[in-house]
Amino acid sequence: MPTITDVEITDVRFPTSLDADGSDAMNVDADYSAVYVVLRTDDESADLAGHGLTFTIGRGTDVVALAARHQAERLVGRDVDELAADMGAVYRDLTADSQLRWLGPEKGVVHLSLAAVLNAAWDLAARRAGKPLWRLLADMTPEQLVDVADLRYLSDALTRDEALGILRAAAPGKAARIAELERRGYPAYTTSAGWLGYDDAKLRRLCTEAVEEGYRHVKLKVGASLDDDRRRLGIAREAVGPDTTLMIDANQVWDVPEAIEWVNALSGFDLLWIEEPTSPDDVLGHAAVREAVAPVRVATGEHSHNRVMFKQLFQARAIDYCQLDTGRLASINEIVAVLLLAAKFGVPVCPHAGGVGLCEMVQHVAVLDHVAVSGSLDGRIAEFVDHLHEHFTDPCVATDAGEGVGYVLPTAPGYSTRMRPESVARFRFPDGEYWASERAGAAT
Amino acid sequence: MPTITDVEITDVRFPTSLDADGSDAMNVDADYSAVYVVLRTDDESADLAGHGLTFTIGRGTDVVALAARHQAERLVGRDVDELAADMGAVYRDLTADSQLRWLGPEKGVVHLSLAAVLNAAWDLAARRAGKPLWRLLADMTPEQLVDVADLRYLSDALTRDEALGILRAAAPGKAARIAELERRGYPAYTTSAGWLGYDDAKLRRLCTEAVEEGYRHVKLKVGASLDDDRRRLGIAREAVGPDTTLMIDANQVWDVPEAIEWVNALSGFDLLWIEEPTSPDDVLGHAAVREAVAPVRVATGEHSHNRVMFKQLFQARAIDYCQLDTGRLASINEIVAVLLLAAKFGVPVCPHAGGVGLCEMVQHVAVLDHVAVSGSLDGRIAEFVDHLHEHFTDPCVATDAGEGVGYVLPTAPGYSTRMRPESVARFRFPDGEYWASERAGAAT
Repeated sequence: MPTITDVEITDVRFPTSLDADGSDAMNVDADYSAVYVVLRTDDESADLAGHGLTFTIGRGTDVVALAARHQAERLVGRDVDELAADMGAVYRDLTADSQLRWLGPEKGVVHLSLAAVLNAAWDLAARRAGKPLWRLLADMTPEQLVDVADLRYLSDALTRDEALGILRAAAPGKAARIAELERRGYPAYTTSAGWLGYDDAKLRRLCTEAVEEGYRHVKLKVGASLDDDRRRLGIAREAVGPDTTLMIDANQVWDVPEAIEWVNALSGFDLLWIEEPTSPDDVLGHAAVREAVAPVRVATGEHSHNRVMFKQLFQARAIDYCQLDTGRLASINEIVAVLLLAAKFGVPVCPHAGGVGLCEMVQHVAVLDHVAVSGSLDGRIAEFVDHLHEHFTDPCVATDAGEGVGYVLPTAPGYSTRMRPESVARFRFPDGEYWASERAGAAT
Repeated sequence: MPTITDVEITDVRFPTSLDADGSDAMNVDADYSAVYVVLRTDDESADLAGHGLTFTIGRGTDVVALAARHQAERLVGRDVDELAADMGAVYRDLTADSQLRWLGPEKGVVHLSLAAVLNAAWDLAARRAGKPLWRLLADMTPEQLVDVADLRYLSDALTRDEALGILRAAAPGKAARIAELERRGYPAYTTSAGWLGYDDAKLRRLCTEAVEEGYRHVKLKVGASLDDDRRRLGIAREAVGPDTTLMIDANQVWDVPEAIEWVNALSGFDLLWIEEPTSPDDVLGHAAVREAVAPVRVATGEHSHNRVMFKQLFQARAIDYCQLDTGRLASINEIVAVLLLAAKFGVPVCPHAGGVGLCEMVQHVAVLDHVAVSGSLDGRIAEFVDHLHEHFTDPCVATDAGEGVGYVLPTAPGYSTRMRPESVARFRFPDGEYWASERAGAAT
């Protein structure tokens, strides 16, 4: 009967701003970071612990870490098996603090930190079961999976009975769909080629390499300059050829009228979607953009802060692709609710990834969606960005098994978010070896 | 030429949970708190400083304080007169940090903390000018006032030219409206009578007293039990008589279908509005509730986290009353944008108050709206809650000058949010005298 004995919360920052990885029209100097939560147990023989994180981009990671500490301390002393047996109750317990709720509610720092803590709890539950998280969830009955989902505030769009109906309809084909994913992987696209800070030569080279590696979808950042976007999309289209799908991502830089004008000015490049055309809070704005830029489709979700926002994006027919974020939603409990809503409204889920550890988590969520919820790969592609995986003990792998690049189904127990101790020691902020020597260098 | 030399950020908590003040269906044990920001200057002769705050309810106030520190430090070394001359630039500078932006964007902890810091900057600007803040703003030209407003993401609903048109139309009557408010005060309603934790006898007594004091509007908390709500509204209606307006506030406890059913079950008590019937993020949900509970009207806004949410609440015709919050929106820069949107859509602004210091700020915002933006008192009533004012050096005053209780126009320079040093010393968390002795008591 292992018990959670301690919580470790670490602010980890990687100096990615040095080489313009991750640069876009809104975020020019991101240092990809994480609040990394470890739930230690007294099960020393098996080295049992839960590892979770949320993704941040530098300053303020300490703020999220402080909030995570308030939340995670409620888990110390809990019996691991009891916790794993009722993760819906764990979620309700962690969200029941009305004083912390005031600071959101269900958004911003306290929701990011909650994601990190709950991600660690889910990792612990899956490790205890000896299964990768996607399989722990896919093995649940429809009733068990609905019981972990937070359906509060959703009943005007999705009742519990409707949710059960969706899961029951998907149940019969589970084994066949798992076999299919084991063969081909879960379809992935790449953003690695198109960061805004890369020069034209690097853009061309990376686009060419992406197609050679087997990618069938490539995404570029846009929105800083229309002339630059035209030139860069011309280079990209030439490099990838007519059969590769291109998407663009504006990272929220436009007002609604500007978004419509800009996207229509680029539509000649045969684009699948415009991602984050405007404020992530603007449900009605996305609906207006969607109507005006067709046949270019609209995608958003990495900053959609909770299930109520996704409910409205679906109700208003505002988006064609749902890009939920595993570090921003409150872990599996809220993610399952969004997967169910998306299935009800027929919107494909193409989760946001990149950053630190998001790809590691996304593979579990995408696979769960296909195996147990939507039952479909139609229009589904999960984001993949090829950096920072070396800091994880069970990094995700994307490879081309003949039908385009896909995520290889994870087999190790857990949520794939255990970081290498040496990476944490080196990039812990501000006192890890890297940052300490940076400061020493700056002082000389 | 005074300069900002230092920033003091204090976590101040009042033990209001001890007597059920502030109790509602969502928040049962609130300890009314504030992140209190002081911008010190080198102008020692005049004791010039800026004092601002955001309101919180206990745990997690330290998280907001940490975020405020990151933001406020950008102001140290700034020339006070340069800062006061272009508060739009101050706002843009403080919101330009894309790494902190990721933690919202424009919501949750980093937005609450930004409100506290900008509120202090506005208090400083008004003190430097020797004017109460409402007058500093009302004395601005339409061009100057539009320049401090953040209109980003609003142009599909309100252009800069439309905003200027609204302000120019209101300009001619300013002096007459100020004179009117000096005579009668700004109309106020009370929530002090109806907290959920009060027993029936206290409820009856407070309702009776409210009418005797001159209140024409009384608000009650509802949503924990329909039977209790019926009984309490019966008591309240009997106590206040048929000519006093009653409003109810559910503090987000319901799903949309439940809200509709519950409010319709209470509509026999002749209610003006239902406040916060469901999730504050649910624009479309509020629109559905509004359509289904008429003639009871819908009010919300204390948790509407930014101007983009208010834009949609107006576009979707989701609310009848706009209850913006001076501690949650990013101070005057974002509040002016919401006042302009509300004026364009014809929705009365009835700001949320209570808590700590919100009443002190609300009077400035309500007066500004009447004098320089909407030019109307029709349907406008600002919330007033009579507690914790004793902790401020320039507390707001609400009194009946013959036309019902109203806020007396503030005359002291600033935003009325300077706390008494002895209050800060006593209730600073965790090391102020009150909390230290609480801990000592708990240890014995």
